[in-house]
Amino acid sequence: MFSVTCVAPVNIALIKYWGKRNEDLILPINDSVSMTLSTAELCAKTTITASKSFYSNIMWLNGKEVPFEENTRISRCLNEVHRLAIRTGSQKIPLSWKIHVESFNNFPTAAGLASSAAGYACLVYSLACLYGISLNDELTTVARQGSGSACRSLYGGFVQWHRGNLDSGLDSVAKQVVSSTFWPNMHVIILVVNDQRKNTGSTLGMQRSVQTSQLIQYRADKIVPERVNQLKSAIHKRDFDTFAKITMTESNQFHAIALDTYPPCVYMNEVSHAIVSFVHAFNELMGSLHAAYTFDAGPNACLYVLKENISKVMYAINKAFPNDLMESSDYIRGISLSNLDIKTEDNSFRKKMELLKIQPENALKYIIHTKVGDGPRLLRANAH
Amino acid sequence: MFSVTCVAPVNIALIKYWGKRNEDLILPINDSVSMTLSTAELCAKTTITASKSFYSNIMWLNGKEVPFEENTRISRCLNEVHRLAIRTGSQKIPLSWKIHVESFNNFPTAAGLASSAAGYACLVYSLACLYGISLNDELTTVARQGSGSACRSLYGGFVQWHRGNLDSGLDSVAKQVVSSTFWPNMHVIILVVNDQRKNTGSTLGMQRSVQTSQLIQYRADKIVPERVNQLKSAIHKRDFDTFAKITMTESNQFHAIALDTYPPCVYMNEVSHAIVSFVHAFNELMGSLHAAYTFDAGPNACLYVLKENISKVMYAINKAFPNDLMESSDYIRGISLSNLDIKTEDNSFRKKMELLKIQPENALKYIIHTKVGDGPRLLRANAH
Repeated sequence: MFSVTCVAPVNIALIKYWGKRNEDLILPINDSVSMTLSTAELCAKTTITASKSFYSNIMWLNGKEVPFEENTRISRCLNEVHRLAIRTGSQKIPLSWKIHVESFNNFPTAAGLASSAAGYACLVYSLACLYGISLNDELTTVARQGSGSACRSLYGGFVQWHRGNLDSGLDSVAKQVVSSTFWPNMHVIILVVNDQRKNTGSTLGMQRSVQTSQLIQYRADKIVPERVNQLKSAIHKRDFDTFAKITMTESNQFHAIALDTYPPCVYMNEVSHAIVSFVHAFNELMGSLHAAYTFDAGPNACLYVLKENISKVMYAINKAFPNDLMESSDYIRGISLSNLDIKTEDNSFRKKMELLKIQPENALKYIIHTKVGDGPRLLRANAH
Repeated sequence: MFSVTCVAPVNIALIKYWGKRNEDLILPINDSVSMTLSTAELCAKTTITASKSFYSNIMWLNGKEVPFEENTRISRCLNEVHRLAIRTGSQKIPLSWKIHVESFNNFPTAAGLASSAAGYACLVYSLACLYGISLNDELTTVARQGSGSACRSLYGGFVQWHRGNLDSGLDSVAKQVVSSTFWPNMHVIILVVNDQRKNTGSTLGMQRSVQTSQLIQYRADKIVPERVNQLKSAIHKRDFDTFAKITMTESNQFHAIALDTYPPCVYMNEVSHAIVSFVHAFNELMGSLHAAYTFDAGPNACLYVLKENISKVMYAINKAFPNDLMESSDYIRGISLSNLDIKTEDNSFRKKMELLKIQPENALKYIIHTKVGDGPRLLRANAH
């Protein structure tokens, strides 16, 4: 009996993945670029045990058994890793042994974060560790077939998922742009928004966009390629201003495409839009871009903020979004502000912040403070 | 002393005007198509009095004096009508006489309807009546310089505003597609939404879209021309299904472009999106398109509905959007349902309507029921 335990990170897209050119192989219509978040705050954790005596493959997600063989995406990931193991001769354990998979997310699903990306990245990475396959381009194509954006969670730092051109999808791979140490002061504040609404799932939503939006193909062909280059160049120069502007513009365009869909897909709510207005107003008051928002297929905001500006942004958020949980440690989670080397706010700053529009109480559920992080890693490997 | 009193209608765009190629002359980047609403429910009413003894030009809007000479748009309208009067020799009264203008909207500004379109159309039409100029293409270019969409309010029925190609704007004119009698059973239900939010004004909003949206020019060049032709063809065939689909798709795309703006312009709110979902759900339950929504630069919805379906749609609206004013005559304004030749709803219809999602109470402020109507007309002309 062998077992491995791994963790894998969440990633947040800066240039958005929206639209497949092949539903089955999960091949996108455009490149996307993401930042990987530190696993200290958010991660998927997976233990895979393989044994000669196991009768069937079983998987538990957050303690609940889920279909394995019937789930084409999970079983495809296993089959593809097996294929890779055979081809590379990496067979630390026999492929015939059945496996038990236990996977957990350390963050509430209510956060609406892309848990499937971290989950599939962790599954595929753990399988690779189990059979002794090292991380490479081809492994990212396996994770991609579990959940598109999962391929980006196999690397730390900033990551590009290349759409590729081959019908086989073999060139639709994720590659690291720079590692987490390149721009280590890039922090993220996730604003989790109270929301009851049930939105169109992203698989169905992007399908509908490809079928009905008259703008999506133009975006994929003409706008995204240039944006990807501009963003990568901003990252290489650690140019926060350009980075922030592209990130916000891109978030807005993604939601524009979702709205140009028939029937339209609406993911942001009034609080999301209030966050957008807040960020623009705050940046205006500061005289330069201090925070950049991005929204995925849900109402929650991810704000990119340099470490040196975190305390100012957090002060402003608390001002504009009053919450009766403010004093509770449950409200601001993740990296502690007291661990940051920050100046006490001066009076002129505080005065400026009085100009922010104050939103109704408790529009935010809680806040997560995290930062750029590394890719998946092996925590334990045991032979019993 | 001479005086004329005219009324002019509101028009609702089906293909949206968003973006100018010349701010000064108000020349649009694309054609737009609208339907003119009956003046029985909504209109601007203007009385212009000219007298040798008046000392200066004065204007009152809804009883309040507003700047005249200082308002470049108002004074330009007057100057352009004067120019036209000279050129056509239409000088029923001396151009040197000063004028007093009294203008009213018979609908609350809270309705967020394009009051400026009706207002400028009425001003220009009244001036034309005063000096004895007949309605022609050139007069629409004058109204256009007051408020872009005002040019469309000079005709009844369905109207196309041609973007034109000349720098002078002389070919940027409105022309009637068909008159109000062509599709007389085309009714409109306006859902006025409770909303406090202050949105970006449309002049500023479209300016910002032209400057920052990477999708707007593609839309103007590649998408709108085809949509205009398809819509006109649907109108000529009285094909409600195609008409409805284009109208909704176009409304969504306009708001997509507004969102693709930096900073984004957000005009729809949660209630607006609930109306969108309601219309799609209702059409789905009915098995064919019975209602089509369109939203301008604000949260209120205009639903296009054929007369024979009005009672069903109204029943469904009252079901999905409960309101404690429902019994009051203030709540449903305009054409009375009892004046319509409608069948009593059957049981199977009522049962279906039970499946509609019920929105929180009082999401709607009130409802206006109106229909396609004629262009401006002269009510009175007096010589004292």
